[in-house]
Amino acid sequence: MKSFPLSKVYGLLEPGPVVLLTTARAGRTNVMAMSWHAMVEFEPPLVACVVSNRNHSHGMLKATRECVIAIPTLEIASKVVGCGNCSGASTDKFEAFGLTPKPASRVTAPLIDECYANLECRVADTRMVSGYCLFVLEVLKAWINPAIKNPRTIHHLGNGRFMVAGKRITLKSKMR
Amino acid sequence: MKSFPLSKVYGLLEPGPVVLLTTARAGRTNVMAMSWHAMVEFEPPLVACVVSNRNHSHGMLKATRECVIAIPTLEIASKVVGCGNCSGASTDKFEAFGLTPKPASRVTAPLIDECYANLECRVADTRMVSGYCLFVLEVLKAWINPAIKNPRTIHHLGNGRFMVAGKRITLKSKMR
Repeated sequence: MKSFPLSKVYGLLEPGPVVLLTTARAGRTNVMAMSWHAMVEFEPPLVACVVSNRNHSHGMLKATRECVIAIPTLEIASKVVGCGNCSGASTDKFEAFGLTPKPASRVTAPLIDECYANLECRVADTRMVSGYCLFVLEVLKAWINPAIKNPRTIHHLGNGRFMVAGKRITLKSKMR
Repeated sequence: MKSFPLSKVYGLLEPGPVVLLTTARAGRTNVMAMSWHAMVEFEPPLVACVVSNRNHSHGMLKATRECVIAIPTLEIASKVVGCGNCSGASTDKFEAFGLTPKPASRVTAPLIDECYANLECRVADTRMVSGYCLFVLEVLKAWINPAIKNPRTIHHLGNGRFMVAGKRITLKSKMR
């Protein structure tokens, strides 16, 4: 894992991949699959995301105000779906699905070694949590696997259907 | 365009495509490209999206509290980038880029005939507009082009680079 500039983090999340969100509390870790996220600011990178109060991670995120957003690729898609199909209240998902937690630098929540990018986050705004379970996160530190040039991210279409990232194109654009 | 069930709208936006957002006010229309959006609720479908106050659409959306989210595909990618590269304050983008506005049923903002899906929206919550330019939209009515089975949506990677939707896979999932 190599340090990745915060100014470029938006390009990792803007295409809309399924991500994994890790939390840690009182010596226990958890990980959930998440697709409801959006960039809110370039720098410092702010990310809005919905973590339902039916998810075990909701309470952990609220209590610790820290998490890691890890971005998986097709190679571990079955582990991602596995994480989405059970609860951290009763399952150690890192162990159950063979995911490897690694220490983060700025937060207690773990990085996931099998993911091509990891974003260490703190909760920056909770005003929309009571109404929509929407947390605004600030990315404090980003890591990437530099060996993976065109990550085959997965994008959820609903009910177990996913779109896999296809070809890259470049168009003449003035947009950041 | 065929009516599309509101209960399935999340599957259109969850994969994270670049979308076009149309607005209409005092006989003028506008359209902007947008990637910072996330689902917030399944039904009625709620969508959080960031419309910067540097965009002409910001004022139109705030004043009219209505818009259409239209989902383009690779076929019109150059028009999408064109919309992102100029301002509705000085350009009639529908005319400049050969996009065809069509009347919506529930809002004044137009549908875009060249897009494979169109979502008529009202602004449901503006509490995060002052802090983050983040609007919560409710989708009132959805339309889809039923002829397009595997839309080649485009997903922004930053600075004119896009990922085009690739192959579809199905995994055994209990998630909606």
